[in-house]
Amino acid sequence: MNTDGDPTGAQSTADVDGARFLRDFAALSLIGRSAGGGVDREAATVADHESRAWWSGWLEANGFDVRIDQIGNVFGLHCFVPGAPYVLLGSHLDSQPLAGRFDGAYGVLAAGHAARAVADRVAMDEIVPTVNVAVVDWFNEEGSRFSPSMMGSSVATGKLALADALTITDAAGITVAEALTPDATFESPLEVGNYAEIHIEQGRILEDSGATIGLVDGTWAASKYVVRVHGDQAHTGATIMADRHDALYGAALTVVAARELTNRVAAGKLHTAVSTMRVLPNSPVTIARFAEFNLDLRSADEAVLEEANRLLEEEFARIETTARVTIERTLTHEWGLRSYTPAGVALATSAAEAAGLPASRILTVAGHDSTNMKDVVPTVMLFIPSIEGISHNEKEDSTDADSVAGMTMLAEVASRLVQGELWHGERYVLPTTVV
Amino acid sequence: MNTDGDPTGAQSTADVDGARFLRDFAALSLIGRSAGGGVDREAATVADHESRAWWSGWLEANGFDVRIDQIGNVFGLHCFVPGAPYVLLGSHLDSQPLAGRFDGAYGVLAAGHAARAVADRVAMDEIVPTVNVAVVDWFNEEGSRFSPSMMGSSVATGKLALADALTITDAAGITVAEALTPDATFESPLEVGNYAEIHIEQGRILEDSGATIGLVDGTWAASKYVVRVHGDQAHTGATIMADRHDALYGAALTVVAARELTNRVAAGKLHTAVSTMRVLPNSPVTIARFAEFNLDLRSADEAVLEEANRLLEEEFARIETTARVTIERTLTHEWGLRSYTPAGVALATSAAEAAGLPASRILTVAGHDSTNMKDVVPTVMLFIPSIEGISHNEKEDSTDADSVAGMTMLAEVASRLVQGELWHGERYVLPTTVV
Repeated sequence: MNTDGDPTGAQSTADVDGARFLRDFAALSLIGRSAGGGVDREAATVADHESRAWWSGWLEANGFDVRIDQIGNVFGLHCFVPGAPYVLLGSHLDSQPLAGRFDGAYGVLAAGHAARAVADRVAMDEIVPTVNVAVVDWFNEEGSRFSPSMMGSSVATGKLALADALTITDAAGITVAEALTPDATFESPLEVGNYAEIHIEQGRILEDSGATIGLVDGTWAASKYVVRVHGDQAHTGATIMADRHDALYGAALTVVAARELTNRVAAGKLHTAVSTMRVLPNSPVTIARFAEFNLDLRSADEAVLEEANRLLEEEFARIETTARVTIERTLTHEWGLRSYTPAGVALATSAAEAAGLPASRILTVAGHDSTNMKDVVPTVMLFIPSIEGISHNEKEDSTDADSVAGMTMLAEVASRLVQGELWHGERYVLPTTVV
Repeated sequence: MNTDGDPTGAQSTADVDGARFLRDFAALSLIGRSAGGGVDREAATVADHESRAWWSGWLEANGFDVRIDQIGNVFGLHCFVPGAPYVLLGSHLDSQPLAGRFDGAYGVLAAGHAARAVADRVAMDEIVPTVNVAVVDWFNEEGSRFSPSMMGSSVATGKLALADALTITDAAGITVAEALTPDATFESPLEVGNYAEIHIEQGRILEDSGATIGLVDGTWAASKYVVRVHGDQAHTGATIMADRHDALYGAALTVVAARELTNRVAAGKLHTAVSTMRVLPNSPVTIARFAEFNLDLRSADEAVLEEANRLLEEEFARIETTARVTIERTLTHEWGLRSYTPAGVALATSAAEAAGLPASRILTVAGHDSTNMKDVVPTVMLFIPSIEGISHNEKEDSTDADSVAGMTMLAEVASRLVQGELWHGERYVLPTTVV
């Protein structure tokens, strides 16, 4: 295409970068492609290994030094100032089963392109770096095959011990260490000064508001449980109803109660979910003695979350009586409303203005690798719009224009970060890069 | 112990037989013994193979000719009248996971002891046989590992094709043929004239009524479904509640609705159950796109069952709207109230009187191998009491006195059967014994 405003007839740098980005993203999206047009790349499966290999090849072809740490995070390093720490940009290439192309992978590739753009600007003396730039594919952000989620960034930020992570098993009993066979290649520890990440929103707030960029200033509060219902085995036919202690009935009442909690608080204020179910003995003629499932409560309002937890306790007591079961609940994760550093939001706001991109502040409901990284270094988190808010689904999508705009925005943020705008001397050493 | 009425001080034959039976039953119950005092012998597992081997050894030691058919049913034959058909007595040695010692195995061992007692009476010229006696351990009555249940007797009665049964897989993808490695040993087809089975009741009717023997005169009516709920994947946190199509929520509403149907008809008239659940993708951060489970309705009143099916249809429609899912249901089994032959019930009634055992008529809610056999030859079905009606549970139990009484009762019934009391020339040839 010719750009009217350019008398030479050459394409603008931005257009060329955008076309290259979309071409690379289309290639990456072929790895683990699912029949429904999404991807299926659970952590350390063949498809995930292929996407990690593709990423290593892309990094090498684009002038990065490739390094892998002990939990399988794949880094690309670009050193401008020897001895200075790195601005790290990244996200994750793994996916949920039958998921969309954008969730994670978009942010990894945008990080690669943004870092390359920063390196070009440094090479052309457009900017003067005070720190270096690196990019990363965090291992197993999704947590569907190996729980917990955000595994790579949790180990890298010291929230999960490496040895514990490597021995976690999938449903088939395969450990992370066996599935990953990590081959750590760092020669010296990686010191990080700042982190930035861009991700598809997974909701419809940006689409509804017309903004192209979401400036994430905080996370929803959440309470996450594992619930175990204990009943007693019985015959599905012969045992009279009054004699039953049916664990699956108790589980079903809990799933329904969790869902209906959302109707008992102000509309839209509470999100709840149960999405897994394990039943024993899972026989067509034996009443379940045991059922186990996850149960999440999330809200942007801590008072609503507290009320939901209180109502849930009442429901548990009611269900124990109704189904004649006992319910054991373990609170596995709990956090309040957490902020991203306001200085990072200010930097991103300024960057969006400079890039001419309409942006608005937003909270993230979902967890991201940045929610780990923000606890160790000043961090910037950005969103691009999701079409209809569809997420964890093959139909997840965003427009080409928004995809390119996000990459441009991340390059603008990264340019500011390598010039030290958000760096005040922090040096976080990733423990996974220290042998 | 001395029997006061016996001046020689010798134990009575009945006492000796009872003690032998209980000793053998204790030995059999050690195979696949579970920590909670029950057994875990799913079909064609190591424990089931061990119990089948033990049974073959017991049969050989007690003078039976052992034969195995093509679906792994293990027979012991005692021929009195060459060319005449066999009275067959039996039940099953396989169990549900973590099940009781009695369910099935009691009936197999009682059949062995009863047939031996019959052979003794023939040898002592106490009775004159017109037909022969055989005993059987039917393969995979429980159906928990390989579905459907009552597999061995279904194949033997022509209700399930042998080739289809052998290719059925368990959850790990292992076929029946692989797990069973049957080694058929019949030299000539087995012709059956009558069948009799004794089983633990699995309910509390006999216990409550004070009867020792249940004379089964019919089966409850039943409708059995496989239900599949189709939703759409979404993020458990980020997706707003109104946008969700949650298959597990739809499944949970159905489990609750099925249970609550029992409160909408006359008390005790309807038994319902859901006891399995499979969810996809079963990820802690992705709303389920799919859920699959069994759903059974059973009643002794066909009008109640019809009403329950009608109410269930209304519930499906309501749940499809509430959870924004589609529900696909397949009626996999359906039967009305079915009778055992009245002549068999009359024979058993007379036998109980002769043995001095308090007996009462009863329906069976659960299916048994006899429910297959009764469709091909005149059949007698008997129960002994269950303590508290506990079934499909390690705590399942019956008293020693009732166990021995049941064996005595079955021997009395078998004695009458080998004398041709219920035989009118029927010769059913088991297809699995024809090569």
